Amino acid sequence: MPDRPTQILEAAARLIARRGVRGLRVEEVSAEAAVSTALIYYHFKDRAGLLRRTLEFISQRAVRYTDAALETSDDPRVQLLLLELQDVPQVKENSAAWGELRATAVFDPDLRELLAAATRDWVEDLAGLIRQVQEAGAGGVGADPYAAAERLTALAEGLSERWLSGTTSLQRAHELLRGAVETELGPA
Amino acid sequence: MPDRPTQILEAAARLIARRGVRGLRVEEVSAEAAVSTALIYYHFKDRAGLLRRTLEFISQRAVRYTDAALETSDDPRVQLLLLELQDVPQVKENSAAWGELRATAVFDPDLRELLAAATRDWVEDLAGLIRQVQEAGAGGVGADPYAAAERLTALAEGLSERWLSGTTSLQRAHELLRGAVETELGPA
Repeated sequence: MPDRPTQILEAAARLIARRGVRGLRVEEVSAEAAVSTALIYYHFKDRAGLLRRTLEFISQRAVRYTDAALETSDDPRVQLLLLELQDVPQVKENSAAWGELRATAVFDPDLRELLAAATRDWVEDLAGLIRQVQEAGAGGVGADPYAAAERLTALAEGLSERWLSGTTSLQRAHELLRGAVETELGPA
Repeated sequence: MPDRPTQILEAAARLIARRGVRGLRVEEVSAEAAVSTALIYYHFKDRAGLLRRTLEFISQRAVRYTDAALETSDDPRVQLLLLELQDVPQVKENSAAWGELRATAVFDPDLRELLAAATRDWVEDLAGLIRQVQEAGAGGVGADPYAAAERLTALAEGLSERWLSGTTSLQRAHELLRGAVETELGPA
């Protein structure tokens, strides 16, 4: 059983993935988490505080899901493909909530700093993986790891939104991402 | 002076770019367009009808902006770079509104079919440009034009959202997109 603040953040992420964040009221989160609104205000101060912590929570959870999936393979090239496109209900929920908070940051300056920091962390992690591929002699000799990581993560975000809005199938999104890794690093 | 329906669609696009589409009321569009709500209902039936036509309008306007910019260069490689990343107020407004409608389609099935059709048109246009590059002997010999176009447009969407949410500068977004075109098609 997660502690109360985690339980509240899980409920907030679930709601954001299901109905979006705009107009989301603290009362809805309280009903979803089965706790009082007072407890939410006690832990997160106000709605803005709750949203910022939820964005952080979603971003950290994405890292955990990716780390768990990474353990299924030692090949850094395979690991590059995971990104946020996984058809596991929890990962899909997380991608939807993360996408929604990204889209909302266009209108809500309050979310921007955290979004930029989380994006930077993700890009740096991926750039590290690309350097491993290069050092293992598995391709990408001429590539700038940071620029390639910026492109692959931005592409994953674009493809994730197409998948979640029904414009592209998950299988096609995977094919395109695999193609992008090959284009960036050359064939394995 | 644009006709009344166009004036209403322009006002709707402006509002969506500024404050998002969720919770947008027909009354706000009527105030922004300086027309009666009755006229909006007359032309668009209801809020859902207005949103669908606004999405179509934004998508067609994006094609017009791109066409206008295309005339500044005969080089299809240069034309590939334009996509939706242009720092012209009208184009920026259009990108913001388009991004918001994309993000909203995750929660609103009513927008999905139009979004998928508009995306398909855009991908096909770009695939045509890539074929021109190939036929002109200007690179991209081995590339699958349609897959490359799907990747470049999804990347442009991801980068556009990063630009509009303040995560990436427009200059960096352009550099990354230019790098992606070179990665897809080889150096010019």
